[in-house]
Amino acid sequence: MPRTKGDHEARRRDVSEAVWRVLATRGFAGLTLRAVAAELSATTGLLTHYFPTKQALVAHALDILERRTMSRPRRHTGEGLTALRDALLDILPLTPEATDSNRIWVSSWDTALSEPDLSSDYARKYAAGRHRLRERVAAAQELGELPPGDPERIASAAQAFVLGLVVQSLFDPAAYPPERQVELLDDYLATLRPLSPA
Amino acid sequence: MPRTKGDHEARRRDVSEAVWRVLATRGFAGLTLRAVAAELSATTGLLTHYFPTKQALVAHALDILERRTMSRPRRHTGEGLTALRDALLDILPLTPEATDSNRIWVSSWDTALSEPDLSSDYARKYAAGRHRLRERVAAAQELGELPPGDPERIASAAQAFVLGLVVQSLFDPAAYPPERQVELLDDYLATLRPLSPA
Repeated sequence: MPRTKGDHEARRRDVSEAVWRVLATRGFAGLTLRAVAAELSATTGLLTHYFPTKQALVAHALDILERRTMSRPRRHTGEGLTALRDALLDILPLTPEATDSNRIWVSSWDTALSEPDLSSDYARKYAAGRHRLRERVAAAQELGELPPGDPERIASAAQAFVLGLVVQSLFDPAAYPPERQVELLDDYLATLRPLSPA
Repeated sequence: MPRTKGDHEARRRDVSEAVWRVLATRGFAGLTLRAVAAELSATTGLLTHYFPTKQALVAHALDILERRTMSRPRRHTGEGLTALRDALLDILPLTPEATDSNRIWVSSWDTALSEPDLSSDYARKYAAGRHRLRERVAAAQELGELPPGDPERIASAAQAFVLGLVVQSLFDPAAYPPERQVELLDDYLATLRPLSPA
């Protein structure tokens, strides 16, 4: 039977899935053609067709990570402070899928910090994330749900807080189950709120 | 001339220094016998005497990281909230040395998350760090510098905040120079403080 374009694309999807599963269990440190081939029950030879070099494999892995992050479902439960909380909850490892993605993001930092171009790219991504948080902070301020203050600083701090919470939760899921993560985030957001007048 | 024990130890120190420099520039992803040998202007053959396997090299790297972290200088500028601030400042990449250490810690997370034993070991280290922060939180509460509340929760949140700030600062040192990091930390500590009575 002749191979169709559909076969080819299905095969590419299988390869991407296998790369993702290897990353989720072994990180970038364990990402090798051999590991992906084993995951696919394929030969390393077949894999070299898709990834002629280790760099091509890493580039593909970073690309999947980026695409999955962009297309992940997002919470939209309200405006203002609720929208800020939604955006921060979207980052945390509250589900198995979000745990895999976060584990792969954290794992990618080693590679990203070693390569100046990639490192700048990550810095731009985090700056864009802060920009989106800043807009929600400013909207919450307009609604009087957050006190006045530089929204950029509040966004930077909130981003730092959730990133650190991601790392803690990945290393110690028993100490940071989803409800604990949410509790800590809500404590954090509560400290930002103005006290109601006495 | 016969080799003395002193020669041997000096050589080991040189090797450790070279491992550290490779980690600081290339991370665990770039840690190879070849890279360490190049850094030392030695042969890979000499290095296999110290590190017969890649695992032995990684184990040594983790050991240096641990020892350097344990022996780093610590701030002791006061009690209570000041002592908590000191402990958090000690974590941040405010100097070139602290930047290298943090960059190597962050880089080690990829390896640590892939190996269950190492991952548990990291979870224990972070729990011990929280325990030390919790004692300072409790002392600040006794002095009336922090409001009552579960000191473990406040310590967890503060640890998450500084860890995330470390990551942001490593990726974007231009956006997070030392004074910005300190400013964000002080904003954070200010949100924890009880408001003075109106």
